[in-house]
Formats: sequence, C-alpha cells, structure tokens
Amino acid sequence: MTNPTLLILAGDGIGPEVMGQVTRIIDWYGKNRDLAFDVEHDLVGGAAYDKHGTPLHDDTMAKALAADAVLLGAVGGPKYDDLDFSVKPERGLLRLRKEMDLFSNLRPAQCFDALADFSSLKKDIVAGLDIMIVRELTSGVYFGEPRGIFEEGNERVGINTQRYTESEIDRVARSAFELARRRSGKVCSMEKANVMESGILWREVVQKVRDTDYPDIELTHMYADNGAMQLVRAPKQFDVIVTDNLFGDILSDCAAMLTGSLGMLPSASLGAPNPDGRPKALYEPVHGSAPDIAGQGKANPIACILSFAMALRYSFDQGDEATRLENAVEKVLADGARTADLMGPEDGTPISTTEMGDAILAAL
Amino acid sequence: MTNPTLLILAGDGIGPEVMGQVTRIIDWYGKNRDLAFDVEHDLVGGAAYDKHGTPLHDDTMAKALAADAVLLGAVGGPKYDDLDFSVKPERGLLRLRKEMDLFSNLRPAQCFDALADFSSLKKDIVAGLDIMIVRELTSGVYFGEPRGIFEEGNERVGINTQRYTESEIDRVARSAFELARRRSGKVCSMEKANVMESGILWREVVQKVRDTDYPDIELTHMYADNGAMQLVRAPKQFDVIVTDNLFGDILSDCAAMLTGSLGMLPSASLGAPNPDGRPKALYEPVHGSAPDIAGQGKANPIACILSFAMALRYSFDQGDEATRLENAVEKVLADGARTADLMGPEDGTPISTTEMGDAILAAL
Ligand SMILES: CC(C)[C@H](C(=O)O)[C@@H](O)C(=O)O
Ligand SMILES: CC(C)[C@H](C(=O)O)[C@@H](O)C(=O)O
Repeated sequence: MTNPTLLILAGDGIGPEVMGQVTRIIDWYGKNRDLAFDVEHDLVGGAAYDKHGTPLHDDTMAKALAADAVLLGAVGGPKYDDLDFSVKPERGLLRLRKEMDLFSNLRPAQCFDALADFSSLKKDIVAGLDIMIVRELTSGVYFGEPRGIFEEGNERVGINTQRYTESEIDRVARSAFELARRRSGKVCSMEKANVMESGILWREVVQKVRDTDYPDIELTHMYADNGAMQLVRAPKQFDVIVTDNLFGDILSDCAAMLTGSLGMLPSASLGAPNPDGRPKALYEPVHGSAPDIAGQGKANPIACILSFAMALRYSFDQGDEATRLENAVEKVLADGARTADLMGPEDGTPISTTEMGDAILAAL
Repeated sequence: MTNPTLLILAGDGIGPEVMGQVTRIIDWYGKNRDLAFDVEHDLVGGAAYDKHGTPLHDDTMAKALAADAVLLGAVGGPKYDDLDFSVKPERGLLRLRKEMDLFSNLRPAQCFDALADFSSLKKDIVAGLDIMIVRELTSGVYFGEPRGIFEEGNERVGINTQRYTESEIDRVARSAFELARRRSGKVCSMEKANVMESGILWREVVQKVRDTDYPDIELTHMYADNGAMQLVRAPKQFDVIVTDNLFGDILSDCAAMLTGSLGMLPSASLGAPNPDGRPKALYEPVHGSAPDIAGQGKANPIACILSFAMALRYSFDQGDEATRLENAVEKVLADGARTADLMGPEDGTPISTTEMGDAILAAL
C-alpha cells in the first residue's frame, strides 16, 4: 500500500516557521501511529515569485492537484506590495483555490477556555464560543469578470463583478447543511439581499436547498451588516454561518478576532470528492504571514498544527487521531504554555515557536 | 428672512416614534433660541409604498432636493420582505442618496462614558472611543451596472457590479481629509486591493489626493478584512476611516456595535455644496427600523435627536447649538435616564421614548 501524499507550501513570513512544527507532528504520526505520509515541499506566494517570477509555478499547481491534501502556511509581505496585481503573492493562493475548485471554506471561530481572558470581548460573551463559518471560496467578486482598471472618458474606473450561479450557491449551501447536521442543526445565511440582486438569488437558492433536501435544518437569513453587529453583540447565537466569498472574508476575520485566539484558528478549504472519496483539500491557518515577527521564533504554530488536525479529519477519515492532536493542544494550553501572541505585556516570558512544538509533541 | 426648511421622513417601524421626539426639540429651538425651521413631513419606505405603491414618490424626491436638510427615521420591516426588489422600502432610501448625490456618509462610532459598561467589549478597550467612519454612499456595488438575475445556460446567475471612478474616490477622500484636519489628522483607508482592482484604484487615488493636497494628513491603508479584525481588537487605534459603500456598510455597523451605544449613534450623509454654501444633506440614526419593538414606546430617540444635532452643525453652521443639544443628551445619561436598550435585564425599569424626550427637553 502506498502512503497518502501531502504537499506542503510553507509560503512567506512566519509560514515556514509554523510549518516546521507541523512537519515534526507529521513525523510523529508516521513513527508512532502507523500513519505515514509521503510529504513533498514546494513554494507559493512571494517565495515562489522570488524564485520563478510567479506566485505559483505550473508544476506546483500540478502537484497540488495530484496530492491527497495540501498544507499551506501563509502568503504575502510588504516586500511584495508594489508588484503588479497579476503576480502578487495572493494570486498564488487564489489560483490554488480556483483550480482545485475548493468551494467550501470552513473557518471555525472557537474560543479556547484557557484563553477566554485574552479576547477584547467580555469573558461571558465569548467563553465557550464555537461557531463554524462556511465561506464560498471560488466565485463572487474574487473571480467575476469583467474586472480591471479601464479608461472611461477622461478618467479611469476600477471594476469588479460579483457573480453567483445557482449551482455555485447550491453546492456551498449543501456543505453548510451537511456540517450543521453533525453540529446543532442550525444555519444562518448572510447576504445583502436588500441591496444586491446576487444576494436575492443567494437567499432563494439556500432556502430551496433547505426546503428540498434538509428540512431538518433550522435556517435563518440575516443581512451581512447586521451579521457583523450580531457577531460583536452576541456571537453565541450562531452555530453554522454560510456566506459568500467577500462577506465570508470579512465576517470570518471579525469572528476569529472575537475569540482572542487568532493564532489558534485553523481552516479547511474543500472541493468536490475525488474518485477515492477524498475531497480536494487545502488546509491553512486563519492568521496571515505576520511579516513583523517573521524569522524571530515568536510565531504561534498552533493554528497551523490544528489545520493538520483538520486534514486528518476531513481528508483522511482519522477523526480519532485529529481529536488526539486537538487534545494535546488543549492540554499544553491548560498547562500554561504561551507564545507571545497569547500573553499580555506583564504576563512573563513567552515560549518560542519550537518550544510550543516540543510541548505538543510531549503531550502526544 | 425666510426660515430654513427641513423635510422630515419618519419612515417605518420605530421611525415615527423617535422622530416625534425630534419634532419637539425642533419646536424648542424655534421658541427658545430664535432658530425656527419650516418643517414639512412626508413618507418614505414601506409607509410610502402602502400609500403610493412606491417607496419614494416623485413629489417627495422633489421636496428632498429642495429642502435645506432632510431628517430620516428608518425604513423597512418584515411586512415588506416579499415585495419585488424594485419597490422594497430600502429603494426609497437608496434613491434619496443617489439623486441627492450624498457621496459622503459620516458615521461616528462613539462610546458614551455613561454607557461603556454596556458594550460587549471590555471597558478599557472601548471607553472614550471616538471614531468617524466616512463611507462612500452613491456608488460601488450598490449602484453599479450591470446588475440583476439573468438566465445563463440552464440556470440563473445573480450579478452586481462594483465600480468606482477616480473622481468618485477623489471627492470622498477629500471629505475624509477635511474632517481629519478638524480631528487628529489621521486617516486609515480600507479596501481589498489584494484581490480587487477597484481596490487598487481606490488606494492609489486616496494616496494621490493626500500627497497633492493634504500632506499634513497621516494616511495609512488597510485591507478591509484586517480592518474588521482591528476594530474588534483595538478600535482606539483609529480616528477617521474612509472606505467604500459596501465595506462601509459592514465596518460601520461593526464599529457602532463595539460602542454598546447603537441606539445613540447618528449619521450625516452629505453631498456637494449648493450655491448658498449648504451641502445637500440627509441625517438619520444608524440603527434600523426595529420592527420588533415598534409602536411600544420603547425605542431610544437619542440617535435620531443627535442626527438633528449633526444637521445643526453641518447644514446650518450652528455648532454651538449642536453642542448644546449634545451636552443635554450627555447630561440626562449621566443622570441615569435609560431606555430599554440601555439596560440589562436586572437594571430596573426603563423609561419610555417620550420620557427620554422630556428629560432632554428639560436639560435644554
Ligand atoms: C490573502 C487573501 C487573498 C485572502 C482572501 O482575501 O481571501 C485572505 O484574506 C483570506 O481570508 O484567506
Ligand atoms: C437599509 C439599507 C439599504 C442600508 C444600506 O445597506 O446602506 C443600511 O444598512 C445602512 O447602512 O444605511
């Protein structure tokens, strides 16, 4: 039997550092749990641009399509701010999402008990918070045509197109409802149907999928601006939220920050199942490349490690092993292990990226 | 000399109730401060639809264009949810914004001392918070063409167009910089230039206006998703934020909710100056029509009253009288006057909409 394959794209900024700890965890599973992976490493984002003049080489794209799962660190940094739009680091990530057709982006916003004090919100508002945002990831204003900067009369105009087909809405709605069945059975869909026709179609299709195939799901609809308010006011009213690419970008970041656990939050981007039943899949931390602390051993590797746990669960059907890893993380936190992002200025000396990796390996 | 004219469009839900208190304040100014207005009332939103079959009658539009300032309550309600898009209550408000060319929407997010405890955020994060969000209000995805739901192959597709010209960006940037000059001199501009070309043009034009005509302003740029995060994490890092119509919709609601003072927050929507120097202007509370509490005398009239204070300041050059009204509001709050939205479940009995009006009149 051949091992399942993992493509690791560590990317830019703190990406390589946090991914370094994930590699150690992967090795541990190979040695101790009879769960070996064939791991390959490649470049994405600014790192790929520096070498190849493109943020994602065609060979890397081909490897990503062939791999059983892709693990990504982070992309971007001020060094690349002045690059042309077409070769910006972000384009590498967007190409992966689009060509792998990863339409369903799962972003948990979870408040870890040991860290509830660290949120900017009052403890009772966020303690125990556990929301899952399902963000459509391959369409909408991120990819719609026409797009660009054009001459018009004697000035320029910047244009992007928000665009959703019924089938694009249908499939992401289904993935949210499937997920909700394994959680509380409650889904809230967010759009701006009061001002955007694409939002009207979104609302209609999500409702139809619910009525036709998921009558057991309790579905509500909310305007996205109210959604942002409600997330700040009383986030625990939500369980699964389903929304489009752009609203999902903003609302999931807002939700992530509520938890006070930004350096802790993983994400999974899933496509349609392959013949072997595994979905095309990419796993990455919610945090970015954090160029200000890159290369200093300060970064928190937990979000990236929990992204690998999501890979175990969603790509490799190893829910028990995923839980083992998640429990190890909870344990080291409960024991007081803290990287710099998890401490206030007067809370003592933080541990390093590698020391956090050590602690989690020890807990495993 | 003729009096300046005010058009009052109370609208739906709690709109008429809160506007009732504003009318009393307007009368007080006429009697006591030699500041009389000619006031006319008309319909907007669902109320206009019920009477005329359209959320804004052409005659009302004409009156709005002729008035020195428009005061609006709120529009919308579940009763109108199933109306066709073209006659939804919101279309009345959007038509006013567009035809009056109200491109600069000022949304203060201010935390009132007496209410800092009422925020879902920790007190030290929000106490003293005073941000001004300048939202572009007449363009972007709210108005861009093409838009609609179209047949494509054998399914439908929902389309909206994000669209900004250089001059549209230029003028709202100027209004943000002017405002910043009277505040801290700091502006943060938010877009998604990493994924949207319209965001690239936005960033470029805002920077150019700053470099050409406002070199004294400290301008920074931030991606809108990070903006949402930073608003939750540490809102006091901001003073003036300038952003587009859709991001402004979401980010200003998020910022408003941070303060815990949603029922307290006014807004001004300003257009180009008329020959008499007054800008075309519409003033409205940030909160919505709150159909769940409409008609019960529970609504907080303060946001609507402070919107009239903004009218005194921005349309009628009566900054001192605006401050007088704002001070009266601060005083009644400091004295403990609380409508239901400003109380926890165990905080005793709230006062009514009218009682809050009484208290503010007494303080004047
Ligand atoms: C890096 C950027 C292109 C990306 C996005 O906008 O989707 C990021 O913000 C995210 O949320 O994954
Ligand atoms: C009522 C609605 C059309 C409006 C908007 O989306 O602009 C509202 O949410 C606002 O922020 O003023």
